[in-house]
Amino acid sequence: MSPAELHADSIVIDGLIIAKWNRELFEDMRKGGLTAANCTVSVWEGFQATVNNIAASQKLIRDNSDLVMPVRTTADIRKAKELGKTGILFGFQNAHAFEDQIGYVEVFKQLGVGIVQMCYNTQNLVGTGCYERDGGLSGFGREIVAEMNRVGVMCDLSHVGSKTSEEVILESKKPVCYSHCLPSGLKEHPRNKSDEELKFIADHGGFVGVTMFAPFLAKGIDSTIDDYAEAIEYTMNIVGEDSIGIGTDFTQGHGQDFFEYLTHDKGYARRLTNFGKIINPLGIRTVGEFPNLTETLLKRGHSERVVRKIMGENWVNVLKDVWGE
Amino acid sequence: MSPAELHADSIVIDGLIIAKWNRELFEDMRKGGLTAANCTVSVWEGFQATVNNIAASQKLIRDNSDLVMPVRTTADIRKAKELGKTGILFGFQNAHAFEDQIGYVEVFKQLGVGIVQMCYNTQNLVGTGCYERDGGLSGFGREIVAEMNRVGVMCDLSHVGSKTSEEVILESKKPVCYSHCLPSGLKEHPRNKSDEELKFIADHGGFVGVTMFAPFLAKGIDSTIDDYAEAIEYTMNIVGEDSIGIGTDFTQGHGQDFFEYLTHDKGYARRLTNFGKIINPLGIRTVGEFPNLTETLLKRGHSERVVRKIMGENWVNVLKDVWGE
Repeated sequence: MSPAELHADSIVIDGLIIAKWNRELFEDMRKGGLTAANCTVSVWEGFQATVNNIAASQKLIRDNSDLVMPVRTTADIRKAKELGKTGILFGFQNAHAFEDQIGYVEVFKQLGVGIVQMCYNTQNLVGTGCYERDGGLSGFGREIVAEMNRVGVMCDLSHVGSKTSEEVILESKKPVCYSHCLPSGLKEHPRNKSDEELKFIADHGGFVGVTMFAPFLAKGIDSTIDDYAEAIEYTMNIVGEDSIGIGTDFTQGHGQDFFEYLTHDKGYARRLTNFGKIINPLGIRTVGEFPNLTETLLKRGHSERVVRKIMGENWVNVLKDVWGE
Repeated sequence: MSPAELHADSIVIDGLIIAKWNRELFEDMRKGGLTAANCTVSVWEGFQATVNNIAASQKLIRDNSDLVMPVRTTADIRKAKELGKTGILFGFQNAHAFEDQIGYVEVFKQLGVGIVQMCYNTQNLVGTGCYERDGGLSGFGREIVAEMNRVGVMCDLSHVGSKTSEEVILESKKPVCYSHCLPSGLKEHPRNKSDEELKFIADHGGFVGVTMFAPFLAKGIDSTIDDYAEAIEYTMNIVGEDSIGIGTDFTQGHGQDFFEYLTHDKGYARRLTNFGKIINPLGIRTVGEFPNLTETLLKRGHSERVVRKIMGENWVNVLKDVWGE
């Protein structure tokens, strides 16, 4: 099989996209051969604003049903593959939208939310993010984890602090993930995960999606798709070939205002970080260039079997474990 | 001056009442000679529910303006004394009602809220309460403290965890308080404060209101007003005669459903504590018995000057420091 044929034949999952949702992006997802993606519908928003985002996203999916379809189960992912569409899975980057209501976990599950990051950069009712001192998982957070386990929503820890992450990994009865992270073994950064952290989540049945977000890569905006592949390999050496996948963190279509929103606590309060210029690695600057990743991994000597796992099969397996279907 | 005359002549402030708000209670406040009280209008409620509580309370005050009046400044407290009414000061027992909006601090100040407890028993966006592991004051919490300082809302730490309390005391540029607490030197309890904690707040210009809530007293529901006076004396020995006042925690008029609400996280989630039967100390079972406290303190040998300070003058001074008027 040629690299292009393999890519076209594979289940390709992006574990994290936070792009501007519109038809242009959906067209690029088809060009990139994406089978499904975890699409962020809440960051700093509370309950109602998040419901509004979901309602608007559902309409957008309906209006572009020639390109995309909603995904709630792994059967839906396989269906999307069959139909040649991209499955849109709703995800949160912050449990803030649950507000103080444990019952909202199931409400959002019923609206199609299958994966929720426990904290985004700072403290919320559940625990603490990776940009401030971390007091660990709260008592309420433990109740939220139990409810996410019960209902079948995956716990994501990418932007979560080290202590809260460790405690969620121990608390959860279902696999949890870093949906989009990089190893601090290649670059020290508050958002990157140490070898010990990567080993810990894998040893406890968890999953790691590797991002290519330039500010967290050693070469920054001068990175290429090979640097991304190197980070994937570095991570796979620690977590193993069954617990690794992709989580690009594509932000395409957004302007500087959106990054200002992301990098301030609550979307407007104190500044937490400053990304500077964001340029994705050469060779995978847009979602449409996704096939280059399959080609690059093959070129670097990985077998078709392993490339299929990395590109999406592992994600499907772990999502099935969490969702139960 | 007889004890009754002294009481009638004194400014009498109750630093914390969470009773059922109705005319019967206001009548009892007048019977008790209360000049003003910090009346809780938010515990687990979010922004809008708290605004609704305030609107309902404002109407209740209007409808009973022969007995009570709103209080926003220390001049209002003196006015209430002149008019023979009880001043109602709105307070929160949880910063949760600020939600994620720093701007809500000033909104609530404009609605008459002059004192806000940073956390109620558990973790919120600001810090952590006294019934779970305490990770300290969050970055957002520091912004909230700065805004409360700017706007003139007093930080209350009664139900706040030890670490968060210490950090608020250090962070605040205006005096902070434990509005209603007891010394753990007389009884160990998660809600009681150690000698070191009492000394720390006093050494940093803070204030302590002493409660008589039976579950936190050594003799529990068998306590008398003398046990309450002993706790006041114990605390005064540590914090000094200028930094001490009353904060009863009267709950009169509420039924068991209200205590269930208070003792569960968020008002409905996991149980945090169980008070058992609540009977206030003999001699001060109701707000109307407030004059007995003046009499008891005099009987125990305190001077009229000191009794006036304890009963309310100290509260007025510290509120003026925080409010600036």
